[in-house]
Amino acid sequence: MLKLFHAWGSCSLAPLIALEEAGADYELAVISTRDGDQRRPEYLAVNPKGRVPALVTDRGVLTENPAILTWIAQSYPQARLAPLDDPWAFAQAQAFNSYLCATVHVAHAHKHRGYRWADESSSFADMTRKVPETETACFRLIEDEMFKGPYVLGGTFSICDAYLFTMADWLDDDGVDPRQFAKVYEHRERVRARPAVSKVLARKAA
Amino acid sequence: MLKLFHAWGSCSLAPLIALEEAGADYELAVISTRDGDQRRPEYLAVNPKGRVPALVTDRGVLTENPAILTWIAQSYPQARLAPLDDPWAFAQAQAFNSYLCATVHVAHAHKHRGYRWADESSSFADMTRKVPETETACFRLIEDEMFKGPYVLGGTFSICDAYLFTMADWLDDDGVDPRQFAKVYEHRERVRARPAVSKVLARKAA
Repeated sequence: MLKLFHAWGSCSLAPLIALEEAGADYELAVISTRDGDQRRPEYLAVNPKGRVPALVTDRGVLTENPAILTWIAQSYPQARLAPLDDPWAFAQAQAFNSYLCATVHVAHAHKHRGYRWADESSSFADMTRKVPETETACFRLIEDEMFKGPYVLGGTFSICDAYLFTMADWLDDDGVDPRQFAKVYEHRERVRARPAVSKVLARKAA
Repeated sequence: MLKLFHAWGSCSLAPLIALEEAGADYELAVISTRDGDQRRPEYLAVNPKGRVPALVTDRGVLTENPAILTWIAQSYPQARLAPLDDPWAFAQAQAFNSYLCATVHVAHAHKHRGYRWADESSSFADMTRKVPETETACFRLIEDEMFKGPYVLGGTFSICDAYLFTMADWLDDDGVDPRQFAKVYEHRERVRARPAVSKVLARKAA
């Protein structure tokens, strides 16, 4: 059986939603990144990167959201979570997820994890201050250039929607008013209301 | 015909190598990121992200290396540039490229592009100082945990090799001795000697 290592508040919410949307049979292993669980030897034995998510499968451990999300879509094709039969549409999905992974998430990470890229507390404070500006620029680009609507890729829910929802839900805490991005905001609340997403979020509240 | 927007010294070398390895018919459009070409209106009309690479195709513009590389592999299947028929092996390729895109490249970018995430010159200097440490950690993980050999995914050249070569070739300038990563170093020099890569690098020298 699949086993997803997940931390609430992190980007591993995206594959958790995708597994629910796919109707997959999986075990959820919740760790606490606040308590540093991801750097303990028992977790590093699973994922030497010391990050979530990590998805344990029969064939080994898979990391990195764009890879995990695509693998879930390919493994549960009946759920139609990605345009697997059209290389161009699939490339658009990959490009969107890459942008979230390498630009949007990286912008967000500078709020609390500046120590990854600098050593001085003055640098951390500087990075934290700039997060609302960088995230606003990212979501402006998503709103104006990337989001097709009503879902990211157009008419149907995909892995890109699970991933965008995860990051759009960070905006308020990061000091960015999500209502300035009308399409993304409406999308966020619509995704939140999906049965699979409601079920996942209820586990957090429990 | 395909048209690749490329800047020498940037990560767009990876899709350029992939196009050559695929035997694709393409036009190369070289811009200078040092001169700020990527922020000019005529380029932003192609790619509103203001970054390279951008690949213009008959169906539109594609950005983000993991997406472009996969699309090239899917569009030229006879070149066998990715394990397209095995979702697990494909996921491993995607995970490797995601790590390069979102972690290794981001580490490198803090050397000269700290202004993306901070505003103070003291922060930029702090970020620049830390780059050898972060890149060393990345390549240690690649060397010890990810690289199968003789190519990234095992026995045959893939899009992951074009991408790893591109980033491994930044190490010396970033103050990291590549020889401490024996497998990655040997791989880098072997990839450099491939006919398609030699042809690409000769265009730079010309």
